[in-house]
Amino acid sequence: MRISSPANEKIKLVVQLQSKASARKKQKMFVVEGIRMYEEIPKEDLVTTYVSENYYNEVIKAGKLSKEAKNNLNVRDYYIVADSVFKNMSDTVTPQGILAIAKQKEYTLEEMLAMDAKEKSDKGRAFIILESIQDPGNLGTIIRTAEGAGVSGIIMNKETVDIYNSKVIRSTMGSVYRVPFMVTENLPETINELKKNNVTVFAAHLKGDEYYAKDLYKGSVAFLIGNEGNGLSDDIAKMADKYVKIPMDGMVESLNASVAAAILMYEAKRQREF
Amino acid sequence: MRISSPANEKIKLVVQLQSKASARKKQKMFVVEGIRMYEEIPKEDLVTTYVSENYYNEVIKAGKLSKEAKNNLNVRDYYIVADSVFKNMSDTVTPQGILAIAKQKEYTLEEMLAMDAKEKSDKGRAFIILESIQDPGNLGTIIRTAEGAGVSGIIMNKETVDIYNSKVIRSTMGSVYRVPFMVTENLPETINELKKNNVTVFAAHLKGDEYYAKDLYKGSVAFLIGNEGNGLSDDIAKMADKYVKIPMDGMVESLNASVAAAILMYEAKRQREF
Repeated sequence: MRISSPANEKIKLVVQLQSKASARKKQKMFVVEGIRMYEEIPKEDLVTTYVSENYYNEVIKAGKLSKEAKNNLNVRDYYIVADSVFKNMSDTVTPQGILAIAKQKEYTLEEMLAMDAKEKSDKGRAFIILESIQDPGNLGTIIRTAEGAGVSGIIMNKETVDIYNSKVIRSTMGSVYRVPFMVTENLPETINELKKNNVTVFAAHLKGDEYYAKDLYKGSVAFLIGNEGNGLSDDIAKMADKYVKIPMDGMVESLNASVAAAILMYEAKRQREF
Repeated sequence: MRISSPANEKIKLVVQLQSKASARKKQKMFVVEGIRMYEEIPKEDLVTTYVSENYYNEVIKAGKLSKEAKNNLNVRDYYIVADSVFKNMSDTVTPQGILAIAKQKEYTLEEMLAMDAKEKSDKGRAFIILESIQDPGNLGTIIRTAEGAGVSGIIMNKETVDIYNSKVIRSTMGSVYRVPFMVTENLPETINELKKNNVTVFAAHLKGDEYYAKDLYKGSVAFLIGNEGNGLSDDIAKMADKYVKIPMDGMVESLNASVAAAILMYEAKRQREF
């Protein structure tokens, strides 16, 4: 089917989902852009695909679509959109010409703990807890690194940037489809729940008295990562079982949030696997 | 002195330095924005300061300027600029109201090796070599992490994004003033020069046969980090003395460049200091 009017209801929905976290929350859907991210959408989550006229002619009709993308394209309806309209639907400066609406995923803490217990009971689990991370690139990068480091789940307070923001989605490089995560209305409560499940909670903190790379992470662990500008709030920081310190030379006062998270996640992995 | 016209030559220079890498290169100057980065400009590098009318009234005249900023403000001339003109000079959506022109720094490889030999001869040196990093946030984050990890110098090929791009400057959080760096016209030659100085060159590579966290980094080392999309070129990758592998779980094919760099730099630091 062809769409050439920007006033089409379907187009308006995409634009809304792109720009408003509230619309994404209400519809429980989000927008996926670009061929790489499109190929990886789990079939069951795909709702609708949109391709630009130009993409349709140059890639799809020309038989240049990858097998993975073709499989997804044929699962549900897809629409061909006039190039000028497509440009409006896109969040990027130079749109690739393919985007989709997908269903949001939801996980509960119970699911994350249970899922994980099966697979990782031998080495223990690792969680990342994010308090008010604001930069979409940082959040996306943390999710990508978390998958690489074998993290069992990501917990975010509701002040953290929306995980379904399209910049976050892109920076995850597909990990958002695969790493379990949840947004909690009550972060202290969720942290207590983790503790009850024998998860030791660590905070990277300037007051840290233990070197982060000591032999600390053998059981189930969670790492608290705070806001880019202000770090962890006092209320959350004081819930940590242990403060660890990442040493910094020179005049560096703190590391980028996604870098600090990566160093901790990979140090935990190193201690478990080497 | 007051400036209210956007056609003023001084204003035009700032706009040019903000937007064009070629202008920055020719003038050997760059723009520093925001109070945090302003406070840290080394006095000898400061050329001119510009403040918005509003900033002048609300902060400077109101006696709310920090000591560090005041010290810099009084080193050279400063200009008060009409708010609307200042908005034009700024690279950010909500300008803080203070920016400065500063002199670019230059280091040679000889300087980086010599500087370093004095301070770090006991534990060996660490260098980061960047091939065609494109994202300003990644470059800035790598520089910030490098200072924290005690890296001796950063070497970039000329296809790497301009270090004096204002987004790079901001993401370094001040480290750009303190970490020695150079842009080389001939990356293979520079790598050979490092090797002649007993620096062992490591590449994080999918073909890596050694776990990155083995006891490898005791002497002087350099880490090769490649472009975000394409990784290292074959020509540069094959110059490495050793390929190391950062293990990745799930379906992750690579880590973000600044994350990979951070994991390697901090692993080297861990091995040297623990």
